[in-house]
Amino acid sequence: MAGPTPGVAYSITIRAEYPNRPGMLGLITSAIGRCGGDAAAIDVVSTNGGRMIRDFTINTSGEDHSRMVMEAIEALDDVSVNSVSDATFLMHVGGKIEMRSTVPVSTRDDMSKAYTPGVGRVCMAIHEDPDAVWALTGKGRTVAVVTDGSAVLGLGDIGAAAALPVMEGKALLFKEFGRVDAWPICVDTNDPDEIVSIVTAIAPGFGGINLEDISAPRCFQIEEQLKERLNIPIFHDDQHGTAVVVLAGLINALKLVGKTPEALKTVVLGAGASGTACTKILLSYGVKDIIGFDRTGALSRDRDYEGNVMKQWFADNTNPNNVNGTLSECIEGADFILGLAGPDLLTREQVATAADNAIVFALSNPNPEIWPENIPENVAIMATGRTDYPNQINNSLCFPGLFRGVLDVRASDITEEMKIAAAQAIAEVIPDEHLDPDFIIPSVFDRNVARNVAQRVAIAAQDSGVARRRRRQTDEVYATMRSR
Amino acid sequence: MAGPTPGVAYSITIRAEYPNRPGMLGLITSAIGRCGGDAAAIDVVSTNGGRMIRDFTINTSGEDHSRMVMEAIEALDDVSVNSVSDATFLMHVGGKIEMRSTVPVSTRDDMSKAYTPGVGRVCMAIHEDPDAVWALTGKGRTVAVVTDGSAVLGLGDIGAAAALPVMEGKALLFKEFGRVDAWPICVDTNDPDEIVSIVTAIAPGFGGINLEDISAPRCFQIEEQLKERLNIPIFHDDQHGTAVVVLAGLINALKLVGKTPEALKTVVLGAGASGTACTKILLSYGVKDIIGFDRTGALSRDRDYEGNVMKQWFADNTNPNNVNGTLSECIEGADFILGLAGPDLLTREQVATAADNAIVFALSNPNPEIWPENIPENVAIMATGRTDYPNQINNSLCFPGLFRGVLDVRASDITEEMKIAAAQAIAEVIPDEHLDPDFIIPSVFDRNVARNVAQRVAIAAQDSGVARRRRRQTDEVYATMRSR
Repeated sequence: MAGPTPGVAYSITIRAEYPNRPGMLGLITSAIGRCGGDAAAIDVVSTNGGRMIRDFTINTSGEDHSRMVMEAIEALDDVSVNSVSDATFLMHVGGKIEMRSTVPVSTRDDMSKAYTPGVGRVCMAIHEDPDAVWALTGKGRTVAVVTDGSAVLGLGDIGAAAALPVMEGKALLFKEFGRVDAWPICVDTNDPDEIVSIVTAIAPGFGGINLEDISAPRCFQIEEQLKERLNIPIFHDDQHGTAVVVLAGLINALKLVGKTPEALKTVVLGAGASGTACTKILLSYGVKDIIGFDRTGALSRDRDYEGNVMKQWFADNTNPNNVNGTLSECIEGADFILGLAGPDLLTREQVATAADNAIVFALSNPNPEIWPENIPENVAIMATGRTDYPNQINNSLCFPGLFRGVLDVRASDITEEMKIAAAQAIAEVIPDEHLDPDFIIPSVFDRNVARNVAQRVAIAAQDSGVARRRRRQTDEVYATMRSR
Repeated sequence: MAGPTPGVAYSITIRAEYPNRPGMLGLITSAIGRCGGDAAAIDVVSTNGGRMIRDFTINTSGEDHSRMVMEAIEALDDVSVNSVSDATFLMHVGGKIEMRSTVPVSTRDDMSKAYTPGVGRVCMAIHEDPDAVWALTGKGRTVAVVTDGSAVLGLGDIGAAAALPVMEGKALLFKEFGRVDAWPICVDTNDPDEIVSIVTAIAPGFGGINLEDISAPRCFQIEEQLKERLNIPIFHDDQHGTAVVVLAGLINALKLVGKTPEALKTVVLGAGASGTACTKILLSYGVKDIIGFDRTGALSRDRDYEGNVMKQWFADNTNPNNVNGTLSECIEGADFILGLAGPDLLTREQVATAADNAIVFALSNPNPEIWPENIPENVAIMATGRTDYPNQINNSLCFPGLFRGVLDVRASDITEEMKIAAAQAIAEVIPDEHLDPDFIIPSVFDRNVARNVAQRVAIAAQDSGVARRRRRQTDEVYATMRSR
């Protein structure tokens, strides 16, 4: 059976108490094993008065599975469950990020430089030369992670507050991989104009804006208007982060199968934010024959999309031969199938009709359009969004390095060239001789990724004319009143 | 001459080069001394080829003084100045705060708990139980420091970006003294309604809002509307922080002079945000005879304030005998003179007509209404806003501990009782037997201050009915699926 395997995301710790006699431990571990639990650790808590208390840390495949494991242990004679705790929840208690000082304030002298009266002169320096804000504050390394909570992961419109754990998680990935200081801004409104006004207003303190988990089509309008209004880069990660990493994977996949973008017959399932963004970057990269799909079929110029801007965009800008038809019909002979739609939408039989050496990216998460186990022989390369299969298309490969590069040169915008440079940077981290059908995308833990992305993006920003300084220019010049 | 003394807020480092021969160093230090510079450190940089290069770190009293010192060194024969750098500016380069992770993300397992897929369950837990956001995110220890840059220090309306160094400084004081994670939000609009909308919208991610350096009378309207709209505490520090610390100082001063609030004839110079807030807290504390002043004279019910809400408020709520007259006339016999207006507004002769054992708080910064050196004999106790005189009325004594206490009990509001509790908490840090006319206010570096303020404020919040949990209740209950 294809499906979720036990993992730490559903790790529980069951504290069980039982008479301390031979055979009891085996009884419990067998019970865990019988119902498919993966016992990751067993610790003794106490052994008082002939009673043993142990913590069993068990990876499960979900909440139902957790409950099943717990009930299996509870059902054992002489065993009682004292408590069940959840490692994931424990990790989030109290939040995952904090604010820290980068300068000391342990003496009065420190305070009179960092705060009043010293800070007054620093403020006036910025007031007189607005560009100095980049050097004399944290603006140049700080990004706002903005969401309205309307399209959080696969969970839908759960609201601003419930989105906060994801935004904190995003912030810590920004720091861990890109040394970027990100702060979550969860806005309690779904009105695109209001979101634009809010982000415009709070922009002075930030060097860039990462839009996150905002539903389509509002995300397009919000991003477009912010790009017009602000002179700092705006990046909707669900669109462009996904697009960059998809292109990175495709670049390496094409090397392996020996095909070119120009000759690539491509089918895109899902005409949402990420489907649109991926298609745009593929077009920029030279892919010509792309057909988008919604539930009804191919997005051609013969249908009426009743104002759906994304589907209309597909009809206007893709499908060069204006093909109509079902997904099954159009998959025939396809070289690249890109799934950004939903679980189990593709069958083995459909995919078997694709071209030889086909490439399938089934990115619906957690359950892909087709599980890797079901892939037919003609597919040469398969990628998913999951951590537990090879070739994970993971946005974290892009945004930390991209914003690092953008901030390094104080870019005013993120251009198409910069996104393609980011994709190439991710792809080239794997040397050609190491490329393999199961290794087209580097690990998010490969520190070369963010470094390479930052470097390539900074250069592309300079080439695109949006860089406002050379890389690594020192800021200390601002602290010097006069130099000779 | 009363006036600024050299301090580290204007510390410069002059790199000077000269022939390495006896007597040269003395020549330079004499030049520094002659023009009133305070040489804090002298370091050798290099001694190549008979040339000596040294860094002279010199405290000065301001930018003009810095320039004078530099020119004095430059004027010496055979001495050249290579560069002049400014310690205060250096401290601000790159900003003063950063975002840090509080959980590790160094392995794939960490990532799948902190981010996808694990985080999804945490989001849903908040979606189902909105109160869980306090436990499962950083909301409960995070405060937004919001400004529009319209009244920054004594600098006026310098705009949102130029205010950022102050807000970063505020954030680090929040952390240093209150273990509160504050993040600056500088809004690029002066429209009160828009500021209210913005702060309302971004509130989900914050446990409290500290309004900062927003000009009057807009600050009143903004604070009032936010208090109505939001269920997290709103605190305009320029008003209430000042009021709390003024009351703290007064509480201790009254102990020393043996007067009671009820019998205290009080004169308040300045009918701005802080003057209004101080007067309100004094009234709450039982002070009855307060007369406010603007440039024209006493704020009585006989004048027309042309819609100035603050002056009208003074006329309606203070001055019980409806006194008209000049400042000089009204100071006669005053027990407490509170200056929140501007430099050098009080003369020694005026103050000499005040009551015996008068209390003078001259809080205009950096230059007080009257310098401590000019105070006549009848004044028993004098306080200023300056670090270089005794009895500094410093807002940093209040806001870190106050917000710590507020967050500890998840208070929904900050009541008048909580502010008075904060003032009492600051005052009582100094034991009665240690009280002295030069020691009525504890140092901001006294760690007992924030701890005591937090405790007293939390208790007052419980008494006021705005606390949403008992202090120190553990959050870990949220991580437990079931407990027996």
